[in-house]
Amino acid sequence: MDLFGTAGIRGSTADRVTPELALAVGQAVGAEIRSRDASGARDTDALEPTAVLARDGRETGPALAAATAAGLAAAGVAVERAGRLPTPALAHASRGRYGVMLTASHNPPTDNGIKLFRDGREFDRELERAVESRVGDDPSAADWDAWTEPVRTRPLAEYLGDVREYAGRFGAGLDGLRVAVDCGNGMSGPATPTVLRELGAEVVTLNGNVDGHFPGRGSKPTPETLADLRAFVADANADVAEPGRPTGGRGDGEGTDGGTEGFAFGIGHDGDADRIVVVDADGEIVHEDTVVAVLAERYVAESDAADPVVVTTPNASGRIDERVRAAGGRVERVRLGALHEGIAAVRDAAADGSNAAAGDGATRVVFAAEPWKHVHVGFGGWIDGVASAAVIARLVADEGLDALREPVSERPYRKVSVPCPDDAKASVMDRLETALPGAFPSAAVDTDHGVRLEFDDASWTLVRPSGTEPYVRAYAESDDVDALVAEVEAAVEAAVRAVDSEA
Amino acid sequence: MDLFGTAGIRGSTADRVTPELALAVGQAVGAEIRSRDASGARDTDALEPTAVLARDGRETGPALAAATAAGLAAAGVAVERAGRLPTPALAHASRGRYGVMLTASHNPPTDNGIKLFRDGREFDRELERAVESRVGDDPSAADWDAWTEPVRTRPLAEYLGDVREYAGRFGAGLDGLRVAVDCGNGMSGPATPTVLRELGAEVVTLNGNVDGHFPGRGSKPTPETLADLRAFVADANADVAEPGRPTGGRGDGEGTDGGTEGFAFGIGHDGDADRIVVVDADGEIVHEDTVVAVLAERYVAESDAADPVVVTTPNASGRIDERVRAAGGRVERVRLGALHEGIAAVRDAAADGSNAAAGDGATRVVFAAEPWKHVHVGFGGWIDGVASAAVIARLVADEGLDALREPVSERPYRKVSVPCPDDAKASVMDRLETALPGAFPSAAVDTDHGVRLEFDDASWTLVRPSGTEPYVRAYAESDDVDALVAEVEAAVEAAVRAVDSEA
Amino acid sequence: MDLFGTAGIRGSTADRVTPELALAVGQAVGAEIRSRDASGARDTDALEPTAVLARDGRETGPALAAATAAGLAAAGVAVERAGRLPTPALAHASRGRYGVMLTASHNPPTDNGIKLFRDGREFDRELERAVESRVGDDPSAADWDAWTEPVRTRPLAEYLGDVREYAGRFGAGLDGLRVAVDCGNGMSGPATPTVLRELGAEVVTLNGNVDGHFPGRGSKPTPETLADLRAFVADANADVAEPGRPTGGRGDGEGTDGGTEGFAFGIGHDGDADRIVVVDADGEIVHEDTVVAVLAERYVAESDAADPVVVTTPNASGRIDERVRAAGGRVERVRLGALHEGIAAVRDAAADGSNAAAGDGATRVVFAAEPWKHVHVGFGGWIDGVASAAVIARLVADEGLDALREPVSERPYRKVSVPCPDDAKASVMDRLETALPGAFPSAAVDTDHGVRLEFDDASWTLVRPSGTEPYVRAYAESDDVDALVAEVEAAVEAAVRAVDSEA
Amino acid sequence: MDLFGTAGIRGSTADRVTPELALAVGQAVGAEIRSRDASGARDTDALEPTAVLARDGRETGPALAAATAAGLAAAGVAVERAGRLPTPALAHASRGRYGVMLTASHNPPTDNGIKLFRDGREFDRELERAVESRVGDDPSAADWDAWTEPVRTRPLAEYLGDVREYAGRFGAGLDGLRVAVDCGNGMSGPATPTVLRELGAEVVTLNGNVDGHFPGRGSKPTPETLADLRAFVADANADVAEPGRPTGGRGDGEGTDGGTEGFAFGIGHDGDADRIVVVDADGEIVHEDTVVAVLAERYVAESDAADPVVVTTPNASGRIDERVRAAGGRVERVRLGALHEGIAAVRDAAADGSNAAAGDGATRVVFAAEPWKHVHVGFGGWIDGVASAAVIARLVADEGLDALREPVSERPYRKVSVPCPDDAKASVMDRLETALPGAFPSAAVDTDHGVRLEFDDASWTLVRPSGTEPYVRAYAESDDVDALVAEVEAAVEAAVRAVDSEA
Repeated sequence: MDLFGTAGIRGSTADRVTPELALAVGQAVGAEIRSRDASGARDTDALEPTAVLARDGRETGPALAAATAAGLAAAGVAVERAGRLPTPALAHASRGRYGVMLTASHNPPTDNGIKLFRDGREFDRELERAVESRVGDDPSAADWDAWTEPVRTRPLAEYLGDVREYAGRFGAGLDGLRVAVDCGNGMSGPATPTVLRELGAEVVTLNGNVDGHFPGRGSKPTPETLADLRAFVADANADVAEPGRPTGGRGDGEGTDGGTEGFAFGIGHDGDADRIVVVDADGEIVHEDTVVAVLAERYVAESDAADPVVVTTPNASGRIDERVRAAGGRVERVRLGALHEGIAAVRDAAADGSNAAAGDGATRVVFAAEPWKHVHVGFGGWIDGVASAAVIARLVADEGLDALREPVSERPYRKVSVPCPDDAKASVMDRLETALPGAFPSAAVDTDHGVRLEFDDASWTLVRPSGTEPYVRAYAESDDVDALVAEVEAAVEAAVRAVDSEA
Repeated sequence: MDLFGTAGIRGSTADRVTPELALAVGQAVGAEIRSRDASGARDTDALEPTAVLARDGRETGPALAAATAAGLAAAGVAVERAGRLPTPALAHASRGRYGVMLTASHNPPTDNGIKLFRDGREFDRELERAVESRVGDDPSAADWDAWTEPVRTRPLAEYLGDVREYAGRFGAGLDGLRVAVDCGNGMSGPATPTVLRELGAEVVTLNGNVDGHFPGRGSKPTPETLADLRAFVADANADVAEPGRPTGGRGDGEGTDGGTEGFAFGIGHDGDADRIVVVDADGEIVHEDTVVAVLAERYVAESDAADPVVVTTPNASGRIDERVRAAGGRVERVRLGALHEGIAAVRDAAADGSNAAAGDGATRVVFAAEPWKHVHVGFGGWIDGVASAAVIARLVADEGLDALREPVSERPYRKVSVPCPDDAKASVMDRLETALPGAFPSAAVDTDHGVRLEFDDASWTLVRPSGTEPYVRAYAESDDVDALVAEVEAAVEAAVRAVDSEA
Repeated sequence: MDLFGTAGIRGSTADRVTPELALAVGQAVGAEIRSRDASGARDTDALEPTAVLARDGRETGPALAAATAAGLAAAGVAVERAGRLPTPALAHASRGRYGVMLTASHNPPTDNGIKLFRDGREFDRELERAVESRVGDDPSAADWDAWTEPVRTRPLAEYLGDVREYAGRFGAGLDGLRVAVDCGNGMSGPATPTVLRELGAEVVTLNGNVDGHFPGRGSKPTPETLADLRAFVADANADVAEPGRPTGGRGDGEGTDGGTEGFAFGIGHDGDADRIVVVDADGEIVHEDTVVAVLAERYVAESDAADPVVVTTPNASGRIDERVRAAGGRVERVRLGALHEGIAAVRDAAADGSNAAAGDGATRVVFAAEPWKHVHVGFGGWIDGVASAAVIARLVADEGLDALREPVSERPYRKVSVPCPDDAKASVMDRLETALPGAFPSAAVDTDHGVRLEFDDASWTLVRPSGTEPYVRAYAESDDVDALVAEVEAAVEAAVRAVDSEA
Repeated sequence: MDLFGTAGIRGSTADRVTPELALAVGQAVGAEIRSRDASGARDTDALEPTAVLARDGRETGPALAAATAAGLAAAGVAVERAGRLPTPALAHASRGRYGVMLTASHNPPTDNGIKLFRDGREFDRELERAVESRVGDDPSAADWDAWTEPVRTRPLAEYLGDVREYAGRFGAGLDGLRVAVDCGNGMSGPATPTVLRELGAEVVTLNGNVDGHFPGRGSKPTPETLADLRAFVADANADVAEPGRPTGGRGDGEGTDGGTEGFAFGIGHDGDADRIVVVDADGEIVHEDTVVAVLAERYVAESDAADPVVVTTPNASGRIDERVRAAGGRVERVRLGALHEGIAAVRDAAADGSNAAAGDGATRVVFAAEPWKHVHVGFGGWIDGVASAAVIARLVADEGLDALREPVSERPYRKVSVPCPDDAKASVMDRLETALPGAFPSAAVDTDHGVRLEFDDASWTLVRPSGTEPYVRAYAESDDVDALVAEVEAAVEAAVRAVDSEA
């Protein structure tokens, strides 16, 4: 059974993510945990054979959580039910054991989904396949006397405390820094505003009440859905000299005295708080690749590893590579949605490498990110938008958002789609693996995830087949993006024609 | 789908009462509740479209409860989760709405089951069929925004208070009466000893800790499984003049001072506290029909109805009829496991009757019971062993157990099985409907549930086909039971032969 | 002991509203409840001798709630702990029993307080004095075996459902009406946005995350603390033709599509959601007396009572009287903070009146309000800002905010303070009771709460001594307010001089 | 303020252990924890500044727990509320942090008390004095923003699992061993029967339902209060060849089949499960010192320490010393109620000793016990009757109770009281420190806790002044106890006369 799409188990609660599926997945995950626990050898790091279970704020969450808990408990796995949590808080709680998060992230409220964690990281492909295989089988519960009774837990406070402590290692105290946060009625509501306030910020929150109908805005943070936040920040800052800097002397718990000081920046989250969008003092969205670049540079600069690595995805901008290289690190790319696998791959390679003599920590992943999604490796192996908010706020308090962005080159970006039958894609890509490097002899070539060319000035282009539609897609970022795209598009079209004529 | 056997939904958790079934039944019951709520007209008495959910102490209860809750919630029905309860406490909590009880009563710990209640009464056949039909269909949840979030409730204290208040209407204050209660590690543990103590008794409890393994004794109370209780009571009373009478002067919360006073009587319950067994001061079990007769007589005597009715089952002894008639009432019989239907039938008949002019309450069911199971109609429409314990204790405190039993004639009882092919049963019973009255012309005949003959001295015999095995069974209770049984057995054998020769 | 100021028990948690006080008040309230329950006769309406306990979102709430619960439980009263609630939801839950709300309303986060409810209404003076007297005594718990065990309850959903149903009787369906709600990090966060969304609105929430630090703004809603909300609404509406009207066709759960439609109006609440402030589409605050006048007129108009009464306070504007009279009702005034007593007084008077023959309901209070605080009598006897939000939204959806305000005359308002020694206040007021009517012979005079003069055009002035400072204060509302105030001020000064010269 | 008697804080809830006291102690303990946490240096072992709070089954427990939680939370300490627990389970949960247990152990139900734990051990005198001092002061809460919100926890299952695992290191599998356990309606009800069942026993439980009225028997286990248990075991074993040995072949979850096999032994606990009494197959109580001796010998024998030490109290029998010496260890005595201090003293001495070179673990406390109370040092530093039950059951399963007792010499024991004015006690004891060794020159002398003489055959006598009454008391255990007591009594009387004549 093919359960896990690129976004994991996710879909409509009317016909896909039903209580029946949640029960089956719970039972399958539970059986897998028990099997690994029993077989000992497979779990060399000796995880507790228990699972912590949470959900986001969707209306369908409580019933699905009950069904999942039933499956886990009947499989003989101890279950802690954590109620509503941000996804990163559930991941945090899954350290040393297993975790199940019921969330459809930024999907509409009709949907829901299931994300699986093991020791703070999303399930890898091996574990996913093991679960799929068990869901396909007849469900098989544990013996009656091994069934467990789920208990309650409330791990949010510990998570928030750990985020606070972690972020405190970077930048400077917030000291009254004013921040506007749009939680989109999602699970960041009980998290990000609290963390920032505890770190010293003055926080004004939009849509901070958790509501599974997402009444305030669409759950996915986009320039459109964040229009309220952007206008709110921009208007508040219209006549303010230095927006969002603390005006001093409050600390009286009386709240802001009228909002005349404006906001240093704004933050938008998705429904389960793994994504973050940053809005500047003018209400404009800071490009997601720029946010990654800023964080990546900082993490590399502060690392004491001999070979600090940042993991990102093929569609992420060369500006990241530029800043990472400037700070003395290097970038590795992994397919979209697989940051956790990329981190593991770098680790495994380092462990196997002939440079083992270089000692522990010579090669170390210091950050992993795809646009909007950041794994703060020093904090934990999961995507964490709340930690991003806290770290970014500390950096902004120290240097200001403009200063942080200044070194990042933001080049124009374009994307085109060239029609190509599904059955021709493989041949087309084969041809392009030769044709494109030939057309751009000065570029560095990477064919791990499509064909990616990178130029000396960090301009880049990526060509890859769509996974779901009859197109080959080309992405490019360059000071002269139109010319670059035109040339690449022509090469792709030529390859498609050539394959077609062969057939 | 045939879900409901004579014992309701009950069986092994390994292959029958699984989380999948619990989820499906939860969803089916929920859909039925919503449908009735929506259709208005069907629920003329306007029940709340909500369900209260509980379980007994079995190890498989928590997971099955989670699955059931998931089904109900996804069907759009508000769910209150009550944790562990005696079945009668769940029934009590279901008044004005619906109730789901996860229990296999006295079955072994490998099993579990689902009992359904509507407004304090078990589902009738119409409702059972509606649920069966829905379970057979593809499950169909409510729209996403109608799914509910189960909440917690703790109805036990209110139930215990109501039992106490109800029992207080009968007999006398317990005033230190000493009672031994064997809860069999079932759900009476947190109920019966507490109620009796609150009513003033000194209670010593056996197996009062709830444990789904039933370590102390078999969950079904029988002379064998109650051996410990019987020996405990008998030995404690060995040298006591007036066993179990209060010795006065304690009231100091120090507990009993050594047990030298013995016990007035003992009580044994099954796993979910609907059944009760009474043990006398000599450690002997009081016959279950005698217990019914004592309660029936009392309820009839205390009723102000013009036509007080006691409902019982065909296998229940004529001693019940004797005592009921002595008190001025009459007995109606209904098939085993259907006391709630019998009560409803009497009510409906009374409401329809030409004697409507006789006014409200002219005909009234004042008690309904089958052996070990008592419906205290003045308290509620469910089988309630805890209420039985409380009422009996009040009666014993008033009169003593011996005095209560004294008027009840306990005649010898026998049961025989005559081989008869399944396909011959109907014809055999047809013949016996004529043959038996012919053989015993002095007897009153009732053919509603088999053929039942009753004699002037309340002796009786009942002949009916087994529902599960190739036998026709004959029961008899009489001062000369051997002669009576011999004659009946011969008649049955003759009928079997006659049918066989016809074929 | 003088516990109850004009704001009830309220003050700093450092030295006034401590756990010790909460324990003592809990025990005193509990003892009073038990005493009334035991004495039977005093509680003629047979309340349950139980208390429901809740708190607002302050940091000190959990410890104070635990202490209060300890006191109530040790006094032998059954306690249901409801966690965090808006004050009106606690009041709603206290119907038929007692309620304790831990809140300091709009005070700073350092403070907390205790509000006491009986059957949905705040304690009257007699009950307050009984509690004060018991707190002054040595605490005296119940006998050990009467102590209770607090249990949990979650009454919010039922409250929200009842608000929704109640509001549904007025105005029209919201049908996508866009509303901005600033919850000020208080307890309206889980209430008002949900109710409005369920009624069909598109709601954008400011500071909807509950946070006892009130980081977003001061807890008291004023023009200054609501600056963010006002700017947010005004800016969103800057280029919108018909702000806040539904644009149709969403219903897809995707949230608003960018906020371009603006907002029909805005709402601000205080920390515990009893107060409401309404903001118009231009971001201006609608005068609190105007809001009262709009609601009062509507309630009178929709009442079928022969003599519909609106209760308000002396400082409330004559525009209320105007609208009430226009709708066929009359106004009664009661001292500030005592709306519940005013309602009771009108009821008692009606019950005692010689017009008893006129039948039940001839005289009926249909609404009671002081500025920002509304008792929706048809819903319940407590101040309820959430119900206000729901009813106003329905009225706005039906007619538009401008149309609702249009009939209300908003005259200029002023207030002055005339120095007057505390010991002279009584004599000064004595003199003014004659002097002011003499100076304004055309005015209707009311001397129940100071001296209040009302003119034919609903202009009015009120003179009363300050309760806490050495001033006599004069309030006036009139088209020519400066002249009116000058004349009144002169009269007060003359009275002060006269008294002074006598001394 | 003198809070801590020899039994800690304990007394009537009517006038001593009130909610006010619980609040004050909670706040004092909380302030002390915060102070130690803040001062860092004092808590060198870096405990979490949090407290876990539990109570036994008394009626006054919930209110006192709420008050204690309020005090701790207002002091700024994170509180986990564990509900009802056996005291040893709370102690277990307090490892790495602090613990508060509300229990009056075996006192009558009118009483309650407060036991304080730090890192699994009872508070030492220094901590007790710090708490006393703070309770005497005005209560002073933390700043408002440091107050905490108590959360729920359920540590029982983990505790039971750890007991099971620990006991598994000793003796043999229970394999159907039959045990009768009288929980006395105390907190062992949810603990000991479960642990024994999980270890494989067939357990029949008396008074296993938790009831704060202690209806079944007095809370303190004595020969009298255990009369029911003793008779139950004796009668069940009357005709059984090998009582309590498993009869094989069950394992079917059906419970015992009639109790004909009898019981290997019985167990009685007090109200909070720190004490244990063992009953043999004849229903006789095994002497408490014999139980200590059996365990002590075993722990010494299984220890790999060079110098294994058993800590006990002066009133404990020489039979303990005999068995400990036989196994190669030695005994240290400490005053009654201070086993935890004795353990610490031995540790400290070992750490300071010149034999430090002998290496870690040369000297190690392997067991500490006073009659009925056992500290299983290898499991944890608290008194634990549940662990005792489990270990003893494993030993019995291995060897049989008779074989375990066989090597222990049980000599006759007597106690006499000699009148002596309080102000003469010190001088009398001074004299006896010389006189008694003079009178018994062959005895080894220990004057640490009164005067204790021990003879070559492990006979002993102890003389010490009563702490509460005008007596000097003499205890003796010897094959010729009457002669020994007579001689000692004479010496004491002589000393009293001598002191009197001096005065």
